[in-house]
Amino acid sequence: MPIVTFRHTGGEEIRTEVPAGLTLLEAAKQAGVAIDAPCGGSGTCGKCRVRLLTGDPEMEANPHLSREDHAAGWRLACCSRVTGDTAVEVPETASAYRTGIRTADLSDPKVRGAFEAVQQDLKAAGVMEEPALQVREIALDPPTLEDTMPDNERLERALAAELGAERITLSLTALKKLSALLRENDFRLVCILRKHGGAVQVADIHAPGIPHPACGLAIDIGTTTVSAALADMEDGALLARASAGNGQIRFGADVISRIIESTRPGGSQRLKKAVVEETLVLLIAAMCRDAGVPLDRIYRVSVAGNTTMNHLLLGLYADPIRMEPFVPSFFRCETLRAAEVIPGLSPSAELVIAPNVGSYVGGDITAGVLASSLWESDELSLFIDLGTNGELVLGNGEYMLCCACSAGPAFEGGDISCGMRATDGAIEAVKIDKATMEPTLDVIGEPGQKPRGLCGSGIIDTVAELFRAGIIDARGKFARNGDRVLRDEDGMGRYVLAWAADAADGRDVTINEVDLDNFIRAKGAIFSAAHLLMEQVGVSPEDISRFWIAGGIGGGIDFHNAITIGMFPDLPHELFHYIGNSSLSGAYAVLLSSSAWAKTEELGRCMMYVELSNEPRYMDEFVSACFLPHTDHSLFPTVEKELS
Amino acid sequence: MPIVTFRHTGGEEIRTEVPAGLTLLEAAKQAGVAIDAPCGGSGTCGKCRVRLLTGDPEMEANPHLSREDHAAGWRLACCSRVTGDTAVEVPETASAYRTGIRTADLSDPKVRGAFEAVQQDLKAAGVMEEPALQVREIALDPPTLEDTMPDNERLERALAAELGAERITLSLTALKKLSALLRENDFRLVCILRKHGGAVQVADIHAPGIPHPACGLAIDIGTTTVSAALADMEDGALLARASAGNGQIRFGADVISRIIESTRPGGSQRLKKAVVEETLVLLIAAMCRDAGVPLDRIYRVSVAGNTTMNHLLLGLYADPIRMEPFVPSFFRCETLRAAEVIPGLSPSAELVIAPNVGSYVGGDITAGVLASSLWESDELSLFIDLGTNGELVLGNGEYMLCCACSAGPAFEGGDISCGMRATDGAIEAVKIDKATMEPTLDVIGEPGQKPRGLCGSGIIDTVAELFRAGIIDARGKFARNGDRVLRDEDGMGRYVLAWAADAADGRDVTINEVDLDNFIRAKGAIFSAAHLLMEQVGVSPEDISRFWIAGGIGGGIDFHNAITIGMFPDLPHELFHYIGNSSLSGAYAVLLSSSAWAKTEELGRCMMYVELSNEPRYMDEFVSACFLPHTDHSLFPTVEKELS
Repeated sequence: MPIVTFRHTGGEEIRTEVPAGLTLLEAAKQAGVAIDAPCGGSGTCGKCRVRLLTGDPEMEANPHLSREDHAAGWRLACCSRVTGDTAVEVPETASAYRTGIRTADLSDPKVRGAFEAVQQDLKAAGVMEEPALQVREIALDPPTLEDTMPDNERLERALAAELGAERITLSLTALKKLSALLRENDFRLVCILRKHGGAVQVADIHAPGIPHPACGLAIDIGTTTVSAALADMEDGALLARASAGNGQIRFGADVISRIIESTRPGGSQRLKKAVVEETLVLLIAAMCRDAGVPLDRIYRVSVAGNTTMNHLLLGLYADPIRMEPFVPSFFRCETLRAAEVIPGLSPSAELVIAPNVGSYVGGDITAGVLASSLWESDELSLFIDLGTNGELVLGNGEYMLCCACSAGPAFEGGDISCGMRATDGAIEAVKIDKATMEPTLDVIGEPGQKPRGLCGSGIIDTVAELFRAGIIDARGKFARNGDRVLRDEDGMGRYVLAWAADAADGRDVTINEVDLDNFIRAKGAIFSAAHLLMEQVGVSPEDISRFWIAGGIGGGIDFHNAITIGMFPDLPHELFHYIGNSSLSGAYAVLLSSSAWAKTEELGRCMMYVELSNEPRYMDEFVSACFLPHTDHSLFPTVEKELS
Repeated sequence: MPIVTFRHTGGEEIRTEVPAGLTLLEAAKQAGVAIDAPCGGSGTCGKCRVRLLTGDPEMEANPHLSREDHAAGWRLACCSRVTGDTAVEVPETASAYRTGIRTADLSDPKVRGAFEAVQQDLKAAGVMEEPALQVREIALDPPTLEDTMPDNERLERALAAELGAERITLSLTALKKLSALLRENDFRLVCILRKHGGAVQVADIHAPGIPHPACGLAIDIGTTTVSAALADMEDGALLARASAGNGQIRFGADVISRIIESTRPGGSQRLKKAVVEETLVLLIAAMCRDAGVPLDRIYRVSVAGNTTMNHLLLGLYADPIRMEPFVPSFFRCETLRAAEVIPGLSPSAELVIAPNVGSYVGGDITAGVLASSLWESDELSLFIDLGTNGELVLGNGEYMLCCACSAGPAFEGGDISCGMRATDGAIEAVKIDKATMEPTLDVIGEPGQKPRGLCGSGIIDTVAELFRAGIIDARGKFARNGDRVLRDEDGMGRYVLAWAADAADGRDVTINEVDLDNFIRAKGAIFSAAHLLMEQVGVSPEDISRFWIAGGIGGGIDFHNAITIGMFPDLPHELFHYIGNSSLSGAYAVLLSSSAWAKTEELGRCMMYVELSNEPRYMDEFVSACFLPHTDHSLFPTVEKELS
């Protein structure tokens, strides 16, 4: 049988033997190599580009691959069938896996900014009072012939006296180490304590004096991107932060394709493996390495994910989520043993999952709402999370209404031919000179980093700047000509942000009319959902005192640009507040504090879920919003003024 | 490197490659083949006999192997060094492993007798009231667009209404199956329920109508023998019963050698593996196969073992148990997840361990005392467990005093050249004709089963009958001559119970003066410990209203014989009550019932531990008891009368 070799940009190689006739994408699935395939391999997205090194796979013609690209060795993995031994390079943009893991530089204020601000806000709001774990050093009386109490009771007695607790229990992890550790350390110990079933549990014990004795993990599991943070549970310090593409990406870009795949034989296990073993385990290992923290010092894991991601993480049968009457297995889930879900973690680590609210509003949103101060205020706020789905929450300290809309993965770089996650090489901000049409780019990474693609914030800027410069019209079609505006055989226009020679992957970074169409639909979905949610309560945009904008879409959002393209209502910029990845920020708070966890559960119970697909007016609203900025110009007076 | 092949009597072969010069016993340890080596391989016990098939290992001369045996192919594994490829047969008597597993025939009234009597007594005593698990079938209202509650809350709502319980929780095992199972079974389910942390937990769910929906395991982990029973948790029915040698036997016969081995590098893991993977896992698999019960239908495991066995089972550091001031890691241990201790069990199975009372009185005794009715009565009882250690409990409903004595493994066939566990081929009862000196034997197994060795009850009978017939004297030395009394080169006598031609393994089944010496020390240890314990409270044997005799020593005990040899006080036989393996019976009660579990914990707290090694008079008492029946004849008036 032919052998297919996948080489990652980083140099790592994975080989697999496959029958001739299999597509490279199928071979990649078999080998566990994750290649972005948002369309699920149907040939409609053009994202699964790989570069041929050796071999001659048979590729069907596809509109997403030009003759020049083909000549340069590019192939679409989904429509290239193996004919013999083949080797391909999987570029960074196509790999949601391994090379996609990026641990953040914590000295970078941009990395910490929004994240730390949220933690400070939550502390000020008083929800961080009760720590989830306590670290306590204690000295015991050594046993004598007159005092032969067993070691566990000896420790329990000392802790009960010190803490004033009625019942102390020991985990098996702690019990296993107890006798040796006591005798090696002169009967002194550091105890990792937590409340557990009405008692104080000694989750683990250490010799005195080790650094970071108790750590924890906050994880935001997005449909496209997984982000995580490693914390010192004693002082709340952020020890490492990292993100990676969700390994499930090869089973489709959206939650529905994932659910469908999960119902196939072995599918639920495949999807669990893709997100756990191929994503989380590697991400966690990278963070622990970065911070110098052994894996078994993680005692608590807090997960925020959408309802489908939560189900697939636990290996649950998710089909009823997508079938009328849209009933998931759970909203709220008991505290679990982390090792039951993520192999390699300590048996004494616990896992909490932020509660879901509906089939399409999950724990990422309850955690995100916690991170906003929406629930604290008497005034009305609108919370918008820009992810693969867009989720919105309208409310205040008294009530909360929420809904989801299928924005698609455009804000995370999906559905956009040169789109990518907000990692090295991503263009995160763009200016375009009206006269020359020349762009100025901000690229994530070290100084001198060449651009590789566009992340969410870069796409918003590009669309706004193209529109402002008259290069595209209100329907997202190219209206001017110039050096940077090219057209293909069929007349479809594209704008070149970076020429191949200046780009990291040696090909032009462009945005084309299909991308623009996808993006306009995404922003239209968000705007129309916001509009409808406000209508449900009978309020207008002017009644909203604050807009919380969340999402890991790059270096923040230029609100001026977002209003220009009609993504957000035309209101003063100071009402908009970008809080970054609010799911991760909320999960981090839940990780550190039992009171934050209790608050999140309470928020989950208070949120009322509106199913937009049951709202007959949604489609009309959506269609009207699929223009720049909107079909109803009166909704965007400042934009009209600026452009006229 | 030479290859050593071990062939079990059953035909199974295990091969291992070893450096030349290694002993066969070391090779067996490396290959995971358990060979009885009570002396730990020092050449002093003669139990590690194997029969050479091919090859020529170099064997040092050893008093435990005669020239005839050597010529017949027998070798001692501990003093035979590998010189090249070698194959040996590991006979039943030498193998504490695999072939040693015996599932019991439940239709045999002898198998059920004492066991069922205990369960009935406990039921009558009212400690079986609260079942540990409940099995409940329930029907849910299917969801509609108006009632979109998630599946877990739907189940919780229905159960709360049915049980009147305040809080219902679901295990992850149940949650994983929930959505699919509901939809496949018309929203009807069988729930396995238990109390867990103040709530009722749904441990698992099944489709309606399966047999034995909830099972459990009771396990008695002895130093020499491991016994287990599989129960239907719904009705308490015994589904299977089995026993095997403890795989740790190759690290030494007594708990001290095991503890010492456990402190060597990797030792604690080796000992855990020997009892868990090489003994329990196989034993459980055999019972599940026997009863046709899948492994994942076991939801509760109840363990009774001595303090050392309990520590080694959990992989704890056990050294402080044997070092002054003799402090173990624990007496009472939290309820654990069974899968953390025994791989392959369901994540929703729990494991409870009967509490230890002292370093040398463990959970096997608290469970055993539960099984006796000692704690129920106002009258004084003495409970004696005949195992590798002898443990004694003196008391009544008001107080209990307990102690342990190193009886050695003689009652389980250890330390006796032809000793064996009470399994197929074991001589369990013996009569010897005074005139002809010819024996009549009862052998365990199918009719026609040839004798292979002697189990505990057979040894007691043999010693008593030899003594009664005047074949041996009060010191256990041979005093008569005859066909069946042989002497070796050094003049050491032996009595032939079965000639090679009539024996299962093709060699004489004998008892020699070393065996007699070992046995007399064992019975002396028991008698003197009983004596001393009574002295502590200031009572004499006549004050005791009942003697509970426990131990898996064969087909019960002939009390007349046991008194004749001075093992028990000279009292009317009707005061003695044999309750079989009381540890297993007690563990079975704890398995089935939370109230039995609570009672056992209470018994553990009430028992006062006396350390005999701290009693200066114990050694004198012991030496006086090392005669048949005793140096002080006045203690055994009926024996004197019978013999004179």
